[in-house]
Amino acid sequence: MIVEAAQVRSLAEDVLVFHGAPPAHARVQADLLLEGELRGLPSHGLLRLRRVVERIQRGLTDPRTSGRQQWLYRAFLDVDGERGLGPVVAQSALATVEPRAREDGIAVAAIRNSNHIAMLAWYAEQVAKRGLIALAMTTSEALVHPWGGRKKMLGTNPLAIAVPASPEPLVLDMATGLVSMGKIHDYANRGEAIPQGWALDEDGNPTTDAQAAKLGAIAPFGGPKGYALGLALEVMVTALSASAVGTQVKGTLDSEAVCNKGDVFIVIAPRPGERVTEMVSAYLDEIRKCAPADPADPVMVPGDRARNRRAQNLTEGLYLDDRLWRDLLDLKDSCSSKAVSA
Amino acid sequence: MIVEAAQVRSLAEDVLVFHGAPPAHARVQADLLLEGELRGLPSHGLLRLRRVVERIQRGLTDPRTSGRQQWLYRAFLDVDGERGLGPVVAQSALATVEPRAREDGIAVAAIRNSNHIAMLAWYAEQVAKRGLIALAMTTSEALVHPWGGRKKMLGTNPLAIAVPASPEPLVLDMATGLVSMGKIHDYANRGEAIPQGWALDEDGNPTTDAQAAKLGAIAPFGGPKGYALGLALEVMVTALSASAVGTQVKGTLDSEAVCNKGDVFIVIAPRPGERVTEMVSAYLDEIRKCAPADPADPVMVPGDRARNRRAQNLTEGLYLDDRLWRDLLDLKDSCSSKAVSA
Repeated sequence: MIVEAAQVRSLAEDVLVFHGAPPAHARVQADLLLEGELRGLPSHGLLRLRRVVERIQRGLTDPRTSGRQQWLYRAFLDVDGERGLGPVVAQSALATVEPRAREDGIAVAAIRNSNHIAMLAWYAEQVAKRGLIALAMTTSEALVHPWGGRKKMLGTNPLAIAVPASPEPLVLDMATGLVSMGKIHDYANRGEAIPQGWALDEDGNPTTDAQAAKLGAIAPFGGPKGYALGLALEVMVTALSASAVGTQVKGTLDSEAVCNKGDVFIVIAPRPGERVTEMVSAYLDEIRKCAPADPADPVMVPGDRARNRRAQNLTEGLYLDDRLWRDLLDLKDSCSSKAVSA
Repeated sequence: MIVEAAQVRSLAEDVLVFHGAPPAHARVQADLLLEGELRGLPSHGLLRLRRVVERIQRGLTDPRTSGRQQWLYRAFLDVDGERGLGPVVAQSALATVEPRAREDGIAVAAIRNSNHIAMLAWYAEQVAKRGLIALAMTTSEALVHPWGGRKKMLGTNPLAIAVPASPEPLVLDMATGLVSMGKIHDYANRGEAIPQGWALDEDGNPTTDAQAAKLGAIAPFGGPKGYALGLALEVMVTALSASAVGTQVKGTLDSEAVCNKGDVFIVIAPRPGERVTEMVSAYLDEIRKCAPADPADPVMVPGDRARNRRAQNLTEGLYLDDRLWRDLLDLKDSCSSKAVSA
């Protein structure tokens, strides 16, 4: 199914408003889900709308709040998300922290008790487009095993870094798991085996059976280094946000539990009056022009691929899985019918 | 050759003082080289003393300065290292930035025009032992190829993260190259082939010939993600410190060029009056107790291995390569003989 982005956004907004989100909050949440879809990250896309709605219906998410903010220190913002919509709480925190970073050179926001914030790249990129450097990190339910260990004990703990550049910022956004659980589910749905090294089964043994892997643990990316990075991010976010850690993290994948993971944003001001952005931009262009191993596959800078995908999806229309599109229409219909019956 | 740590430190200090370093600066530089050796990172160890001395003799390093510090913003310290000894300039920057982080919650130091700072873990760990979170990063000469590219265009750009925990902090310290160039030199010296995937030759073709790899490029760790992380670190450090970038970075491996890479430290204060450290420590212990894939090889937390190695080296004595020890004694002798002839 090919749909227009504007159509999908408006559908998602209507659904969220129907379920109690103020229009501005609905817009932010819908935008983030749409951006995931546009950039080729459907696991962080509209697939999640039904879960967002269910969580609102069950009181696990309060769509009206944007979180309670408090400066623990002059440049350290503590945010109790009050179970708000993840993107709403995160955007609101950034709006508070960014002016402080401009004034003091650096500032940090640590958020707990908020819901899934969708793709990190979006937040980091927005900040970088306004001329500042951003680091964004978030924890999630334990799905990844320690290097040399047999059980899932770490989140997929993504890290985003965005640095201003012309014409577009560098935007890194990477999970520290080797693959996503969504990808393993895709293999399982197709009845395909997963490659060696991706995952362990429930008993901690290596498996290529995607069904078995769904109950097991994903490998960290990059061996011991990726494990170490994922663990460092897990404890740093926990320490800064006083959120839950490891296997105690709940509510990022289901519609049953209060979400108790943490999010951290670090925003850094640019050096005043220097031409570092020109230097960075020239270097990124040099990288793009690096002789490629495969002539058909030019070297990319982090953020390029997602940006190209987004542009293509905006001009050519967005491909949505038929089942997902039907589900979105159902969600929309259920609002109208309830509204009529009410 | 087995030597005592104290003996090596005193030798290195004497050599540095002879070449014009104030005793306090000699102590810091000697300490950092010794720590590299003690923790099992000989590439960042005493091997580098001769180069430090040569760089002083050639005016590429000024052992007397600790850098010129200036607050660009209230919490953003800019440091012109004035060609100082890397560890001296870095330590001095941390000493300025840490109180500001304690006061404001977060602060950053960006250093340019300073020499090689040896292992990052040391700095991050010291900060974490004093109760704060630290991120440390540094750029280096281009040795790593972009993912899908054929030429070396990125430094091995390490990242360190330390988070307070009991009894010891978590200390991540990882380069973003798959292996170090030092390791490739070791293979070349032994006439051994390197594994597939480690490196490209000078023409950008995959090679297992260690000699050919010495002139070529190292792969990033962890495929496209490790590349993206290394590149993000490269441009973030460049943007914050106004240091050189990519193939323009010189002076981290030789005794010929002024060192123009950058270093960045971000220091973050703990949440006041909360038990996050207990939570983090308990979680790290859980990780260590995770059922291991190989019963002989328990799961480690970043920092554990280096700490164990260090303790062993301090009690049993430090193993130094015979050739390195002779070289150190030569360096020492050359000081005395010059002193006598002067």
